[in-house]
Amino acid sequence: MSAVRPLAVSLGDPAGVGPQVGVSAIAALRETDAFVVFGDGPRLARAFAAAGVPLRTEARVRGDVSVIDVARWSDATIAARAPTPEGGRDQLVALDAAIDVVTRGEARALVTGPVSKAAITSSGVDFVGHTERLAQRAGLDDDGVTMLFLGPRLRVGLVTTHLSVRDAAAAVTEARVHRTIAHVVAACHALGLPRPKVEVTGVNPHAGEGGLFGDEESRAVAPAIRASASLVAELLGPMPAEASFRRAAAGTCDAVVTMLHDQATIASKLLDWGEAVNVTWGLPYVRTSVDHGVAYDAAAAGSADDDGMRAAVTMATRLSPP
Amino acid sequence: MSAVRPLAVSLGDPAGVGPQVGVSAIAALRETDAFVVFGDGPRLARAFAAAGVPLRTEARVRGDVSVIDVARWSDATIAARAPTPEGGRDQLVALDAAIDVVTRGEARALVTGPVSKAAITSSGVDFVGHTERLAQRAGLDDDGVTMLFLGPRLRVGLVTTHLSVRDAAAAVTEARVHRTIAHVVAACHALGLPRPKVEVTGVNPHAGEGGLFGDEESRAVAPAIRASASLVAELLGPMPAEASFRRAAAGTCDAVVTMLHDQATIASKLLDWGEAVNVTWGLPYVRTSVDHGVAYDAAAAGSADDDGMRAAVTMATRLSPP
Repeated sequence: MSAVRPLAVSLGDPAGVGPQVGVSAIAALRETDAFVVFGDGPRLARAFAAAGVPLRTEARVRGDVSVIDVARWSDATIAARAPTPEGGRDQLVALDAAIDVVTRGEARALVTGPVSKAAITSSGVDFVGHTERLAQRAGLDDDGVTMLFLGPRLRVGLVTTHLSVRDAAAAVTEARVHRTIAHVVAACHALGLPRPKVEVTGVNPHAGEGGLFGDEESRAVAPAIRASASLVAELLGPMPAEASFRRAAAGTCDAVVTMLHDQATIASKLLDWGEAVNVTWGLPYVRTSVDHGVAYDAAAAGSADDDGMRAAVTMATRLSPP
Repeated sequence: MSAVRPLAVSLGDPAGVGPQVGVSAIAALRETDAFVVFGDGPRLARAFAAAGVPLRTEARVRGDVSVIDVARWSDATIAARAPTPEGGRDQLVALDAAIDVVTRGEARALVTGPVSKAAITSSGVDFVGHTERLAQRAGLDDDGVTMLFLGPRLRVGLVTTHLSVRDAAAAVTEARVHRTIAHVVAACHALGLPRPKVEVTGVNPHAGEGGLFGDEESRAVAPAIRASASLVAELLGPMPAEASFRRAAAGTCDAVVTMLHDQATIASKLLDWGEAVNVTWGLPYVRTSVDHGVAYDAAAAGSADDDGMRAAVTMATRLSPP
């Protein structure tokens, strides 16, 4: 077996479903990659043992799983099944340790479980979200990275994410649209599509209907499409969003660049429910994430299914081949 | 056979697919209702004869089809397969005549084929769209009516329609959200759902995430939901839009009230492609419309399918039983 650099896996909130689905997904997918997991060492050793996975001191070849012991999760933290300052501290320690390892090149890619923003902020840290933390730790501003949802039926990149629609419309600039196109094209290449057909939606109804409803299409989207012509042979837009997503669903469009959060999430949830992976593009490494939250209720019931985590692991392997 | 008031059918642009799909759909659905059709009398008589439909002088019982001769479509207008001033004039004359008949109560409901806004405006008339014309002719402002997309998997009402997203966010008022909820509930009742489960989305990502992204949810959506409690027992929101549409797809939510054009059109096109009917609620009569455009290419090729028009006719019959 040839040596591989492992995937780094942070499990998210210890009180949420992250540890359960992480252990379960890694146990199921063990032979497809090597894994280094960050969290409570003794607890994770017991969990992996129960799942039939022997731990290695280092993850060097496919099938290897190692744990880096960075925190002690208290019984109270786990039993809370709610955001706590202790859980917030524990999950951020694990995330930052995983970032360190992947940044040093000791892991190929980062897979993240669901964090609780409320728990992390309650621990006294200013935390907007995973993506912002990763960009900051990479020395990028939020503009340097793109959120993608990649699923079996839809690949979509978002020009804006967590802004009010009024602020988002103002944040649609030629530079941001161009960056998103470039990142979507690069992700398509990494997924084995050397000549993707990419469509770019408008911000406004009917992509502005020739300027009747808003100027973002003429001011930002169309110029960015013209400026991106060298990146990809087939690039169409600005298109009415519903038409592009419909073509993606029909398989006649490989990827969509869209402007507003809800344009992307509505399409992704309807087309790829439970199968989409949240991918951050533009970092020095690939990062994938489960597309669900901490799900405290499911964690308490022990009923979480690991489909989302399996999809995130599989996508990380696919986007950064060992 | 007991007497019924007919459906009034305007066929839209003579150069588009409207006349073809109108005649074809009425021929197929003739026994389900009575129909009065507006357009070029001799041409329509020939088209209905070719489809095996004998015309009556009046449509009085199910199975009857009559034509009201309001225009002469020139060969050049039809052959243009493009917007022309003559075609614009012809389609507006037919629409206005149909409105007259349904307003006088001589027809129960209005079914409209696809118009060309460009053709109508090129004929010298200020025409924003079907819905605006209908509201104006009914003495209502645009705020008095609601655009609905009703399909087999999704029923959705739009708080705003043809505005830029910036203007739309500003146009989300408590009054408009309340009106849309009332109209969606009434449409559910008309569709045989006496106790619908209705969800109301937010404007912003994650429905504003507790005020982090925008204030429309706290300023307008939540107060409107509270003010609508007497209208419907199960009314939830403001919800992240993708979650509500997902529940509609899963059948655990009967109808969605949403804020922005693209939120509704993306969901409707993905869930009910080709089967959704555009319905205007709030007029003194029911109005349904095909959910596609003039499709000049398909009209030229004679290849239009009449599924959209059949769905619009069937929905009009269902919403206003004979």
